[in-house]
Amino acid sequence: MLRGMTTPIDFYFDFSSPYSYIANEWLDALAARHDRSVRRHAILLGATFQAAELKSPVSYPLKGTYSMRDFERSARFEGVPCKLPEVFPIPTQNAARIFWWLAETCGEDAAAAWARAGLRAVFVHGVALNDAAALKALAMQSGIAPDEAEAVWNDPVWKARLKRENDQAIAAGIFGAPYFVIDGEPFWGNDRKPQIERWLASGPF
Amino acid sequence: MLRGMTTPIDFYFDFSSPYSYIANEWLDALAARHDRSVRRHAILLGATFQAAELKSPVSYPLKGTYSMRDFERSARFEGVPCKLPEVFPIPTQNAARIFWWLAETCGEDAAAAWARAGLRAVFVHGVALNDAAALKALAMQSGIAPDEAEAVWNDPVWKARLKRENDQAIAAGIFGAPYFVIDGEPFWGNDRKPQIERWLASGPF
Repeated sequence: MLRGMTTPIDFYFDFSSPYSYIANEWLDALAARHDRSVRRHAILLGATFQAAELKSPVSYPLKGTYSMRDFERSARFEGVPCKLPEVFPIPTQNAARIFWWLAETCGEDAAAAWARAGLRAVFVHGVALNDAAALKALAMQSGIAPDEAEAVWNDPVWKARLKRENDQAIAAGIFGAPYFVIDGEPFWGNDRKPQIERWLASGPF
Repeated sequence: MLRGMTTPIDFYFDFSSPYSYIANEWLDALAARHDRSVRRHAILLGATFQAAELKSPVSYPLKGTYSMRDFERSARFEGVPCKLPEVFPIPTQNAARIFWWLAETCGEDAAAAWARAGLRAVFVHGVALNDAAALKALAMQSGIAPDEAEAVWNDPVWKARLKRENDQAIAAGIFGAPYFVIDGEPFWGNDRKPQIERWLASGPF
């Protein structure tokens, strides 16, 4: 494909998804190597899990134990620092509402920076983003006035926006995260990186 | 590690698991490159799913549709022929009992050949291994007298053996397939191939 003719990579994530954190760390460099931009979508796995009759992987017997081990190993495999937070998973609607407010009012780059900051806060520094004080502190570090952040997450406009984004994701068949859509092709999971790389390098297979 | 000092790769599979089929196609060559042998374990996903409160991926809304597409794409990614059978998943206890009978009475290689033949029958040729006539035909093609095959799958000895193997797998934390244990480290899924390759090449990471 000619430069400038490519479509963006749609990337769906939840701030409490460890594999979303890992994928978010490699995605931009991979996209740039293939002249692609990334369009991020903060969603709530609670909503997609309900639609798909699923639960968090860590909630299942046997699979839960494996998942915690696999997450940390998968982070090491990618050379990404990680530390599982004490409480996990956590509700992330407030961080996600701030994401959509930034995307709408400041653009894609500001939203992407917030996504990175939020995911790293959770999975490197063990920050509980569901705690209002912690989330306001993270906002301040990210150049957002803490009171404005709180006003955003309490604003019916951004509550409705997040709900609409969730509904659209579910309507598009998205049941988990990270979830990528590239040229209409869906890829689920941090572990689809090799397939994504081949797709970007040489197209459909 | 010195040659001859390595431990085998334990590989757990179900005859009705598409990702087990794909992994079974690349596993022996990968193991050989790293001077490892493979010890196969036929199990029933129905039993491990029950223990883990899971269902087949294809049984979930949204995830089911994705899984069918991902299976075929993952097979193409590995360069492995595939065609999803019309009825899927199917009960595979009879094929699994024959596997354990072969492992016990003829050794690892005969059991591995049966595993390969059975998985290819399902995922290349669309054979319904739960059909007695089809399974007897496959036995004959594999050099096993059809009546002997039927006697084996009806024999309480091999029923008990399969049950014991399932119970041991669940006790070891195995909840899905393909599932690999290498030097005590668990890897779940065909998509853990890159991590397995690194582990075999350079040890724990």
